[in-house]
Amino acid sequence: MQQPIISLLTDFGDEDFFVGSLKGVIASINPQARILDITHGVPSFDITAGAFLLYAAYRYYPDRTVFLTVVDPGVGSERRILLFESQRYFFVAPDNGLLSLVLQKEKSCTVREVTNSDYFLDKTSKTFEARDKMAPVAAWISKGILTEKFGPIVSDCQKIGILEPVRKGDEVSGFILYRDKFGNLITSIPATMVGAAEGLGSKACIETKESRELVLPRKNNYSSAEKGEIFFLTGSLGLIEIAVREGSASDLTGVKPGDPVRIVLKKHL
Amino acid sequence: MQQPIISLLTDFGDEDFFVGSLKGVIASINPQARILDITHGVPSFDITAGAFLLYAAYRYYPDRTVFLTVVDPGVGSERRILLFESQRYFFVAPDNGLLSLVLQKEKSCTVREVTNSDYFLDKTSKTFEARDKMAPVAAWISKGILTEKFGPIVSDCQKIGILEPVRKGDEVSGFILYRDKFGNLITSIPATMVGAAEGLGSKACIETKESRELVLPRKNNYSSAEKGEIFFLTGSLGLIEIAVREGSASDLTGVKPGDPVRIVLKKHL
Amino acid sequence: MQQPIISLLTDFGDEDFFVGSLKGVIASINPQARILDITHGVPSFDITAGAFLLYAAYRYYPDRTVFLTVVDPGVGSERRILLFESQRYFFVAPDNGLLSLVLQKEKSCTVREVTNSDYFLDKTSKTFEARDKMAPVAAWISKGILTEKFGPIVSDCQKIGILEPVRKGDEVSGFILYRDKFGNLITSIPATMVGAAEGLGSKACIETKESRELVLPRKNNYSSAEKGEIFFLTGSLGLIEIAVREGSASDLTGVKPGDPVRIVLKKHL
Repeated sequence: MQQPIISLLTDFGDEDFFVGSLKGVIASINPQARILDITHGVPSFDITAGAFLLYAAYRYYPDRTVFLTVVDPGVGSERRILLFESQRYFFVAPDNGLLSLVLQKEKSCTVREVTNSDYFLDKTSKTFEARDKMAPVAAWISKGILTEKFGPIVSDCQKIGILEPVRKGDEVSGFILYRDKFGNLITSIPATMVGAAEGLGSKACIETKESRELVLPRKNNYSSAEKGEIFFLTGSLGLIEIAVREGSASDLTGVKPGDPVRIVLKKHL
Repeated sequence: MQQPIISLLTDFGDEDFFVGSLKGVIASINPQARILDITHGVPSFDITAGAFLLYAAYRYYPDRTVFLTVVDPGVGSERRILLFESQRYFFVAPDNGLLSLVLQKEKSCTVREVTNSDYFLDKTSKTFEARDKMAPVAAWISKGILTEKFGPIVSDCQKIGILEPVRKGDEVSGFILYRDKFGNLITSIPATMVGAAEGLGSKACIETKESRELVLPRKNNYSSAEKGEIFFLTGSLGLIEIAVREGSASDLTGVKPGDPVRIVLKKHL
Repeated sequence: MQQPIISLLTDFGDEDFFVGSLKGVIASINPQARILDITHGVPSFDITAGAFLLYAAYRYYPDRTVFLTVVDPGVGSERRILLFESQRYFFVAPDNGLLSLVLQKEKSCTVREVTNSDYFLDKTSKTFEARDKMAPVAAWISKGILTEKFGPIVSDCQKIGILEPVRKGDEVSGFILYRDKFGNLITSIPATMVGAAEGLGSKACIETKESRELVLPRKNNYSSAEKGEIFFLTGSLGLIEIAVREGSASDLTGVKPGDPVRIVLKKHL
């Protein structure tokens, strides 16, 4: 019998009592559960970044993993706590769109509102429902409690509007989804929309902080660029990514999450 | 038989070899022990912040958890290493007050000085006793070695002076205990001292960096305030907390740990 | 039967999807493996710092630990992925010198190039080989797959030039290997080269950012100095270390990794 896994993603940071409290609650309810951190470094209240980070990592986890995901500016309000059950996974999350990107991939999800306070801590606060409600629920799920025990099925949930990239003639338009710690800029444009690889003549266009349009060449990998050179490539999630070899594309250009990006596909630009 | 848990709280940061060394030492002595991090982000040498973070998280852990807690400016000196055994838990800590807040709740503790070098690493250094003495002791405790083996009972230990909040007429005076990563300011004043909840007319008064007195309204939770509004509420530990909705109360006001705060209870202020 | 341990050291940071993805991959392949983090805070692309941090921590881990170590500016290029097997441990790393310091201690290592794609993920990217190749290999090793299955023995590997300290008359010359989070400066000079301890009259000389030579006294431990005093001592790895009591030697002097340091051994300086 395999140890159940509970995987955590939050904007709580690693420097406070928040994450350590969640782990204590989980270990108290299900001492068998293994706790694995995706990250607690989601920028505070940034649901889009949280949605992206979860989307990027969750698919590598084993079947039956319970994801406890908390970026929750609405804590203590009437926003619901939801429990998603897909064919492979369980997700516990506030109802604010944090699962928007995951739901694009996990098609047939059952969604429940978590209402059964039998699975909460005895004493609950208005400001830390992750500890008092969500962590206990995740721990009980990992013990095999059937999802129907936690609350009724609901037919809707919040989604954040993440614009789909658009192809128009020889151009694909999208935007910057995420800036990683190296300063790489991950776009919303799948590599499949802009053709295979280097040498096709495609160019990426971004607008820098000085409102200058920057046209970038395409490379196959980081190390085929010169040190300090800016370029774009297919990133590890199959999305187009703007990078500087051993440098920060974000710092160099001032481009940040939310900014637009265009890929021009003309072969003879 | 349940896997024993060793829970870590230090000011070592996550970016060095310190924490990784502790984990190796523990895994070498007790491969069965599960290691859970509370945090390694206690500000360097800040015993008060460490005491607060431990106090906030420890109570959520299962019985028999061994807490290895290290904020230790006196490392290598004659300050003692202590082993606390309460009804539920074990704590290994330098004798410098790091457990002051926990001891307010864990009333009947046996305290020992750790002197038996049989439970240290063979080679010990003067600068990293957490690795060489405290982590091995925590690992041996988690293996079930009786606490009496580690050293003699002592009748005293260092405590940090944490001022109790004071009620005088319609005012309760306290101070800021901790600033969390969202910039929320957690005070030393229990909500039970200032009455139940929103709508009572109570006000919090703090002095900003511009030496201006700021009077704050009370809310039930973060999301019942407007974005950017500053207010106070009952935090998740039952202490009064000053917060800004989706912002930083600390940055906005310049108020920081140690600063005074007053709650005025007049109903018709 | 003991749970196998996989220990991680990377420059991926704790704030991205990188580390969480590695953990998912490992848990999917070997659900029994325990994952322990040394650190993910190696400065980006800094192979020397990574080599030092690994060297400082690895020796405390139990036999048969698999170290997955990734600081990899050459990802996606022709640089090889190597598998090192010493008498006690396994190491999976890019071929760029990251194991240089460990190899000084682990003398009889078998080194293989990892070439067998049976042990990679089905779909591999050009930018995240740690997830797609190295993590799966580490997980399979932890399941007991013989190292010969992963690829052929190679007779060479990259090493970074780390200058050995030099003794000339009454002076030992070395350099700063690492700056820890407290601002302590760890030198490349073993304490054994400069004699035993405090009171020998030895002095450390460093050049500050103002190009002023600073002569430092020796102490036995941090707490035998005054608050704010700068001095040197034998650090926890047996290397000479420059420190300020409850302060940052690095910030105070401007000295940083790579800078030279001399120890003058004259007894009557």
